[in-house]
Amino acid sequence: MKSHTVDRKIMWGDLDSLGIVFYPRFYEWMDASGHLFFEAIGLTIGDMWLRRKILFGLVETSCRYQRPGRYHDEIRITTHVDALTEKTATLKHSIADRSSGALLVDGYEKRICLDVSDPDNFRAMDIPDDIMAVLRDVMTG
Amino acid sequence: MKSHTVDRKIMWGDLDSLGIVFYPRFYEWMDASGHLFFEAIGLTIGDMWLRRKILFGLVETSCRYQRPGRYHDEIRITTHVDALTEKTATLKHSIADRSSGALLVDGYEKRICLDVSDPDNFRAMDIPDDIMAVLRDVMTG
Amino acid sequence: MKSHTVDRKIMWGDLDSLGIVFYPRFYEWMDASGHLFFEAIGLTIGDMWLRRKILFGLVETSCRYQRPGRYHDEIRITTHVDALTEKTATLKHSIADRSSGALLVDGYEKRICLDVSDPDNFRAMDIPDDIMAVLRDVMTG
Amino acid sequence: MKSHTVDRKIMWGDLDSLGIVFYPRFYEWMDASGHLFFEAIGLTIGDMWLRRKILFGLVETSCRYQRPGRYHDEIRITTHVDALTEKTATLKHSIADRSSGALLVDGYEKRICLDVSDPDNFRAMDIPDDIMAVLRDVMTG
Repeated sequence: MKSHTVDRKIMWGDLDSLGIVFYPRFYEWMDASGHLFFEAIGLTIGDMWLRRKILFGLVETSCRYQRPGRYHDEIRITTHVDALTEKTATLKHSIADRSSGALLVDGYEKRICLDVSDPDNFRAMDIPDDIMAVLRDVMTG
Repeated sequence: MKSHTVDRKIMWGDLDSLGIVFYPRFYEWMDASGHLFFEAIGLTIGDMWLRRKILFGLVETSCRYQRPGRYHDEIRITTHVDALTEKTATLKHSIADRSSGALLVDGYEKRICLDVSDPDNFRAMDIPDDIMAVLRDVMTG
Repeated sequence: MKSHTVDRKIMWGDLDSLGIVFYPRFYEWMDASGHLFFEAIGLTIGDMWLRRKILFGLVETSCRYQRPGRYHDEIRITTHVDALTEKTATLKHSIADRSSGALLVDGYEKRICLDVSDPDNFRAMDIPDDIMAVLRDVMTG
Repeated sequence: MKSHTVDRKIMWGDLDSLGIVFYPRFYEWMDASGHLFFEAIGLTIGDMWLRRKILFGLVETSCRYQRPGRYHDEIRITTHVDALTEKTATLKHSIADRSSGALLVDGYEKRICLDVSDPDNFRAMDIPDDIMAVLRDVMTG
């Protein structure tokens, strides 16, 4: 698996007064798709957070808006690992119209490996070898 | 006026399972602060959208996350115009803890001037001279 | 068709600091399911709002919470028409865990037929006969 | 103190395609006002949840919609304790336009006292005497 896709439908509650998607929704969908991506490659929250006290926190996110999304449009969010460093993984997400294939938004989330064993003080850490192996594998396909 | 500030309190509904702000909320706050910024400099939605059919749509947004925000923290969002081109205006937002002054997040919204007279087909347009004058004025302070 | 179902997965961004669904999300899902229900019975927004300037606005909503929803639970939202009057339609929604069938939440939306041709002044109106016929049909199965 | 008020401004991101508040936002604001109400009467999350492992979970919520809220309207949310039983407290919230005083929405949250010391299994419990004394006091003014 190199990329992972999630389909959804744009709902009334996602729209603003212009009848187009209110842009923070795109980030909500990217976040959700990132979680499903991690789950699909076996890096589950249950294992990572609850057992090992590791989470991927955020360094930076960004989106570029190409086309507005409208009421009940069917969209597809495609996620892949775009870059890896010792401590960070960058996920790229593209959000496209399912019928036309036209790109609505492309964005990324740069995430950093955190030791969250102390809930009041998260600390950056090197990505553990076994997790890095999975991420490298999925990045290179 | 060179910059505009908005104060708010982080609420329970803004938090995720780690007890820190779910990151799309920061974009919601930046969007809201952008609207209040435009209103404060006299570029109201009522005048721009309803009368002149002009809006500033989105080209690109981005955030860098420095520190997590937590329950009932008092935060201050400071907004200013960072760059102007013929068709675009970039707003920078910094979100800081009010008591310590520590930066939580800094981000920007690059917006493009749109003719929205046809609701199904927004078209990019040069920023009208009177609006550009206001934006230049506020950018240079 | 008497009832309509929508499946979804509870995502990280739906949760609060306790790791359970932040309750306004249930209303977002009921609203979305209501729109999909109306679409499924042929009462589309395109036809109702854009062509006939009719919408079903809100009179009252309510939810009872039976069980918390948690990370990546698969849920099913089932929607049906529970009551009709000259001007109002009440949709009932039940939200259940898909694997166990256990009820998480049941709620309703009482909606009133509105003439929205004047965007600044919505007026209650009798449900048109053709729309009432569809709703009666779907209520009685 | 018998009631507690919170002022806020309706923002672009709160609106739907009709240019009125998307109704789940009202519940978000009621939830936030409830938290600020509890804090104002000394029942802080820090003390209740973190120290004593007690929270007030939800039994039932409801809203009636009287008037739509629109872009940049200034609103006031007024919260008070409406009813108390051994295990439950009901908060009433009214949301009114600050300039006209006109009611937009009134709603309630019926909450039940929970022992959350086991995060996977919350259990209903009698409201502790000291907390009940505070709630009774604030209910009767």
